[in-house]
Amino acid sequence: MITLYDALISGNGYKARLIMTLLGIPFRRVELDILKGETRTPEFLKINPNGRIPTVVLEDGRILAESNAILWYFAEGTRFLPQDRFARAQALQWMCFEQYSHEPNIATVRFWVHAGLDKQRAAAVAEKRKLGIAALEVMERYLTDRRYFVGERCSIADIALYAYTHVAEEGGFDLSHYPAIRGWLGRVAAEPGHIPITQG
Amino acid sequence: MITLYDALISGNGYKARLIMTLLGIPFRRVELDILKGETRTPEFLKINPNGRIPTVVLEDGRILAESNAILWYFAEGTRFLPQDRFARAQALQWMCFEQYSHEPNIATVRFWVHAGLDKQRAAAVAEKRKLGIAALEVMERYLTDRRYFVGERCSIADIALYAYTHVAEEGGFDLSHYPAIRGWLGRVAAEPGHIPITQG
Repeated sequence: MITLYDALISGNGYKARLIMTLLGIPFRRVELDILKGETRTPEFLKINPNGRIPTVVLEDGRILAESNAILWYFAEGTRFLPQDRFARAQALQWMCFEQYSHEPNIATVRFWVHAGLDKQRAAAVAEKRKLGIAALEVMERYLTDRRYFVGERCSIADIALYAYTHVAEEGGFDLSHYPAIRGWLGRVAAEPGHIPITQG
Repeated sequence: MITLYDALISGNGYKARLIMTLLGIPFRRVELDILKGETRTPEFLKINPNGRIPTVVLEDGRILAESNAILWYFAEGTRFLPQDRFARAQALQWMCFEQYSHEPNIATVRFWVHAGLDKQRAAAVAEKRKLGIAALEVMERYLTDRRYFVGERCSIADIALYAYTHVAEEGGFDLSHYPAIRGWLGRVAAEPGHIPITQG
């Protein structure tokens, strides 16, 4: 069976849990405590030398890391990844946007709020909040006349962006300003087989 | 003809220039001055609402942003993207590693050195230098017994990581500590049709 090294607090981990669940792929989950350094032990660094979850070990022992690469791997050949070459690149564009412009701000502020804001972090939060709001505004404008990020159905671009957007309020981002985003969150959550981030 | 909105200082722009040149795809380049805010003008935000280069406008007017999505788009069906499903996901894994663990540290420090280090940045540099070295160490260990990041030939994973690694010393990272990385840089640079980052 596939093994997913994971942490329930993590939206990146959630992307992997969610795509496998949506596709009906069985997996076992190993919960690691990021705050206790369990992703940096010598044992785990042998599995993922970059020391991060999610990391997937396939049934044949091959290992895949990085949430968006895991999404892509499981989605290839399914309804969650477009067939058209340009649409595939668009999906990847939004996944790169998520990892570069969205996650480092929105997810990081949420994580700091959970972990406790020390003085140094409190200073960095203001900048990250500004950049997080800019990312939400890019999404809001784009979704104003669209149902999904790529084409007419839920793809891995939506799953990637859903993961940390739907819990952005835990980091103090007020989603009431973004009606198009809220409508889109509801559509992604209505996907058959959807599970909440808290479900392992 | 394809239009590439670009900046010669940018390794992300270089990825787009390099893949199109390696594949013999003609394009015209529009140089934007990031430091003067030319990627945030109302005109450019109509092209890329996220206000970043590289951004590609295809001959039919369709627009693609994010360096690694651009790499993927042009590489599909060529020797630079593996056919095998797992190998494709591995390429994406390293491209995600580049955007999340490598570029925000190694590229950002280089950019700050070019743009001038103010006091606030000088404080952030120490942390980014530490994280940048950690990324280089992950690469060095992985390349110790491998010629390329995925399989036995140069792929877009190598191009993505080459872009800012080969100029890391401009940000003060000492590559003399990383013989495997230096050997790999030489192999990527020897790819037929290679151009330097300074070539528009």
